Amino acid sequence: MKQPVRHVPAGEMLKLLDELAAFSAPGPGVTRLLYTPEWYRVQHFLQERMAGLGLEVRADEVGNVFGRLTGSKVTDKVILTGSHIDTVVSGGRYDGAYGVAAAVTALHYLQMTFGQPLRTLEVVSFCEEEGSRFPLTFWGSGNVTGLYDGSERENCADAEGVTLGAAMAACGLGGSIEASGAGDYNTSESGGTAFLHSPVRNDIAAYIELHIEQGIILERSSLEIGVVQAIAGQRRYRVKVCGTANHAGTTPMGLRQDALAGSAEMLLALERSAVAEGDPLVATTGRLEVYPGTPNVIPGEVQFTLDIRHSEAVMLERFCSRMLDEFADIAGRRGLILELLPQLATTPAPMDTELCMLLEQICQEQGRSYRSMVSGAGHDTQLFAPRCPSAMIFVPSRGGISHSPDEYTSPEELAAGLGVLTAILYKLAYTEN
Amino acid sequence: MKQPVRHVPAGEMLKLLDELAAFSAPGPGVTRLLYTPEWYRVQHFLQERMAGLGLEVRADEVGNVFGRLTGSKVTDKVILTGSHIDTVVSGGRYDGAYGVAAAVTALHYLQMTFGQPLRTLEVVSFCEEEGSRFPLTFWGSGNVTGLYDGSERENCADAEGVTLGAAMAACGLGGSIEASGAGDYNTSESGGTAFLHSPVRNDIAAYIELHIEQGIILERSSLEIGVVQAIAGQRRYRVKVCGTANHAGTTPMGLRQDALAGSAEMLLALERSAVAEGDPLVATTGRLEVYPGTPNVIPGEVQFTLDIRHSEAVMLERFCSRMLDEFADIAGRRGLILELLPQLATTPAPMDTELCMLLEQICQEQGRSYRSMVSGAGHDTQLFAPRCPSAMIFVPSRGGISHSPDEYTSPEELAAGLGVLTAILYKLAYTEN
Repeated sequence: MKQPVRHVPAGEMLKLLDELAAFSAPGPGVTRLLYTPEWYRVQHFLQERMAGLGLEVRADEVGNVFGRLTGSKVTDKVILTGSHIDTVVSGGRYDGAYGVAAAVTALHYLQMTFGQPLRTLEVVSFCEEEGSRFPLTFWGSGNVTGLYDGSERENCADAEGVTLGAAMAACGLGGSIEASGAGDYNTSESGGTAFLHSPVRNDIAAYIELHIEQGIILERSSLEIGVVQAIAGQRRYRVKVCGTANHAGTTPMGLRQDALAGSAEMLLALERSAVAEGDPLVATTGRLEVYPGTPNVIPGEVQFTLDIRHSEAVMLERFCSRMLDEFADIAGRRGLILELLPQLATTPAPMDTELCMLLEQICQEQGRSYRSMVSGAGHDTQLFAPRCPSAMIFVPSRGGISHSPDEYTSPEELAAGLGVLTAILYKLAYTEN
Repeated sequence: MKQPVRHVPAGEMLKLLDELAAFSAPGPGVTRLLYTPEWYRVQHFLQERMAGLGLEVRADEVGNVFGRLTGSKVTDKVILTGSHIDTVVSGGRYDGAYGVAAAVTALHYLQMTFGQPLRTLEVVSFCEEEGSRFPLTFWGSGNVTGLYDGSERENCADAEGVTLGAAMAACGLGGSIEASGAGDYNTSESGGTAFLHSPVRNDIAAYIELHIEQGIILERSSLEIGVVQAIAGQRRYRVKVCGTANHAGTTPMGLRQDALAGSAEMLLALERSAVAEGDPLVATTGRLEVYPGTPNVIPGEVQFTLDIRHSEAVMLERFCSRMLDEFADIAGRRGLILELLPQLATTPAPMDTELCMLLEQICQEQGRSYRSMVSGAGHDTQLFAPRCPSAMIFVPSRGGISHSPDEYTSPEELAAGLGVLTAILYKLAYTEN
């Protein structure tokens, strides 16, 4: 057995992160929206870079970019690692890009240090995850895992009315779908683009994603690595509370049906119950609108959003149904009318237990501080988790800040994540595990 | 001593209310904004009508219209009654207009029935009270009582940018201010307009206003008449609560500074304290805005309004300062930053005790059901209360609805108010009280 990975030089990855951050629309931070010129250029740049590093490069017809290191023993199944290359508007340098840059660096390091793997390794730079230009998310990993059926290309348009299909065509994508399986895998000569292949993949043996936490748990506990146990499921609702708009001066307190006071009671009950339930449950009202919204008129109607997340489906379901019952009680007691409109329901995605244990073992071997945790945010990994063993590695986000030009993770922390990622890829692809 | 007033035929008043309602801009309900053509025409119509009924007619240079019945014994002091002629956009037929129509009818009835009074009686149709066109209120009674200094004419503009002065000039008003005192009182021949006089009056001996309640207290208690004891003072604040915007999925409940959850706690505390304080205190948050206002982001900032009213200055002051302390406690406990911006502070206006007792005595004599009450809404009377004995009479508003085309008071209820108004004017002007 070969020497295990201990320390992977991070310079190449940090340089690549700098290079990726330069592909951005004007404005603060990094803005790289799906199928824009800066997006097109960064994916082309990555193909050339990976080809230059000796990886076999390929892109599918939605614009996901892959770089492969073919195994000597197992080639019909692929160990996939990477993240998404798109950003939100004025986002940071690390969200998504870190997982891509670390994956490229890890494969290069492994090849340089240990030569050809036993099992095929592949880097992916997913075209889209954020949902910042078109009203859909996970367009990259969703196409790879068969979530989308193609109808979105005509049905989805951006704020300017450009359809997804038209935006794809502008990048030379999506025009000619060849229903080619993974067996048709083509090697790109000289890093050239080959946007020809159906994105659906049935050959993924495992998916590993390295990502910044985008939260403050690791920073608050001064730990280097988060081993994600599950990606939380989400329920979103739109809540409408109707009372009676009336004169703020002439309506005694006892004769009011104040939609805002009722909503305030609901929000406090939500917070109290969420705190009592304990981590990893989170419950948030991020938007709230008051009608008519005049200082001297008692609010007649309030609309607000609910975003509730938990890593366990049963707990999520139970909490939501208890809250909605409590909202109904509050409304009933106050003579208010309550309407609930479910907006979104995603299932929690548990990570693969063995991969999690392997990650913890690696942290111990490398002497890195770590903890198990739940990802409250969604990630490409959640689309792979139901289909193949999947895992996520988190590194700290300073102040928990993300989706902001202020997003920051120190080079040492980035290097720690790279070390863990490289080690697990080594264990999966280079050892007879 | 002459026969006291018992029943005043209401037909003339009801017809006049119909006539006044016809002066309106297009659209639902009645819209009669200051210095618009419909406003100009209604004030001209009132001058002609009052002249036709034998009253001496006058208008001042802001467009308040007066109709006088000169006394035989006291002429240097005037018993004034009336209300405002302007409306909100799409308002009702009764708010303001009722007090004007009833005052005209009462003076006509008194003159026809009892002849010349001992003391001078005067009807007023104030040009403006609502603040619906220009960003000021009480422009009519405020000018009569010396609240305004004239600078508003250039400093205030409507939504189209027309200054108050320009709007006045369009109605032939405001151009030539003659600083003429009440002694210069001119009789108008043939109902013609004489917009020449300074509006300030120092000759008002008493002011009596009849108005719809615009609330549901009389209706809920099935009473005909409200004897207003005080017009509530008002405090308005703009409150800003700052927390930390953060990811709704990745920020555990225990690590949040949620500006909306904190605001919800403040609003519930406000409601609870207001209910505990009891009538006539009312406290309302009518407007609330959440930033950034995105479903999956914990609110980093909330701004909301506070409108607090009470009829007693000490109680109002005490309640406000207690609430603001409690808000500060809540903010401190949650790590939120609280900013308070006072927006408005009006003093409660107690009505004249003797006039209130006289009104109650009249209700008893006429066999009308009545109660003492506080006006939570502002009225022209509050500008007179600090200067001369003042009183207000309320009649029920169906469903408490006002500032709406659905505003309604039955002819019988309107007649009851007219009966009480006429009786008090009789007692004040025709008897040696």
